[in-house]
Amino acid sequence: MAIESRERPQRTPQGERTRAMRTRLLDATIDCLVERGWSGTTTTLVSERAGVSRGAQLHHFPTKQALVVDAVEYIATKRRTELEAAAEHLPARRRTRAVLEILSEQFTSPVFLAALELWVAARTDETLRDAVGPLEQRIGRETHRQTVTLLGVDDSDGGARELVQATLDLLRGLGLAATLADDSRRRKRILDTWAKTLDDTIGAAS
Amino acid sequence: MAIESRERPQRTPQGERTRAMRTRLLDATIDCLVERGWSGTTTTLVSERAGVSRGAQLHHFPTKQALVVDAVEYIATKRRTELEAAAEHLPARRRTRAVLEILSEQFTSPVFLAALELWVAARTDETLRDAVGPLEQRIGRETHRQTVTLLGVDDSDGGARELVQATLDLLRGLGLAATLADDSRRRKRILDTWAKTLDDTIGAAS
Repeated sequence: MAIESRERPQRTPQGERTRAMRTRLLDATIDCLVERGWSGTTTTLVSERAGVSRGAQLHHFPTKQALVVDAVEYIATKRRTELEAAAEHLPARRRTRAVLEILSEQFTSPVFLAALELWVAARTDETLRDAVGPLEQRIGRETHRQTVTLLGVDDSDGGARELVQATLDLLRGLGLAATLADDSRRRKRILDTWAKTLDDTIGAAS
Repeated sequence: MAIESRERPQRTPQGERTRAMRTRLLDATIDCLVERGWSGTTTTLVSERAGVSRGAQLHHFPTKQALVVDAVEYIATKRRTELEAAAEHLPARRRTRAVLEILSEQFTSPVFLAALELWVAARTDETLRDAVGPLEQRIGRETHRQTVTLLGVDDSDGGARELVQATLDLLRGLGLAATLADDSRRRKRILDTWAKTLDDTIGAAS
């Protein structure tokens, strides 16, 4: 171990183990939020699920709040990386519809469900809101920028900026609707129509 | 009392007291959901808040589930009545924008917040989902029909039906965004643009 440490001073096995443990804890937090909701998520459950001792978990994340704030950052990074990867495989034809599909998958994914639990809990929990609110605003701006790039629109145009924002709010609303019933066929028809409307209105690259 | 009873056999004072008590309990349920969220809402808290004895509350609503299922119906009736009342005062000019404003007020109201708490709780609570899910689907169809009428569009047209649905999903998404931060200026700009898009696309009465 000492030899390995000297060979890779920036990534010691100890450092890697710590990173891996943190990732396991954050993944377990998201799983718990998705399956049990905010009120059913406890730090004990998360450490059990992650296979991490309570002591180690408390060392890295002393409170549930610390755990979920890092989980929000972790979720945001995951979403951004997934979007970037998906963007590399966009078709030249019907590009707008393909972008809406990728975004829609994000807004109906487990990661969205975990974020939804946090948003709703934060509404009636001031401490959580103070931590999650500013983070969500930053993430919202990032997602907006990424969407503008993916759609290939000029959002300095009057109205284009608002239609990109409306697209993300529409997807959020569709994501919320999808939590109560499987309405994927309805969602597909709505996105077909919206892609056409976007292309006709702000000349998103089709 | 006996005389009054004979004079108004359908609306006895006893019957009116019962109705008034149920209304107080349902209003208190909504208030609790808005202020404390689903997990902070208990039947004890609701009966205290309504000024109704535990015994009387348990007689009308034996469980939290019974209380919230009736609260969803109550919320739906309130929303429908408010929409109908608002519809009578729509301006002839910029009608689409006025309709969006009325709907947006509903999707950011305390009644929306109470419903949001129930939706999110129902996601991880099968019994609640079985009760709330079908009810929400019926309410969704009713709201769609009302919106079609308010906008004055022909939704048998290709695309018009989907754009009306998209409008309601957009409003739901904007309502969810509004729970974390006051973004009323952003919402106003989006709705201005959306109204124009609807008028240009499906010729909603402007």
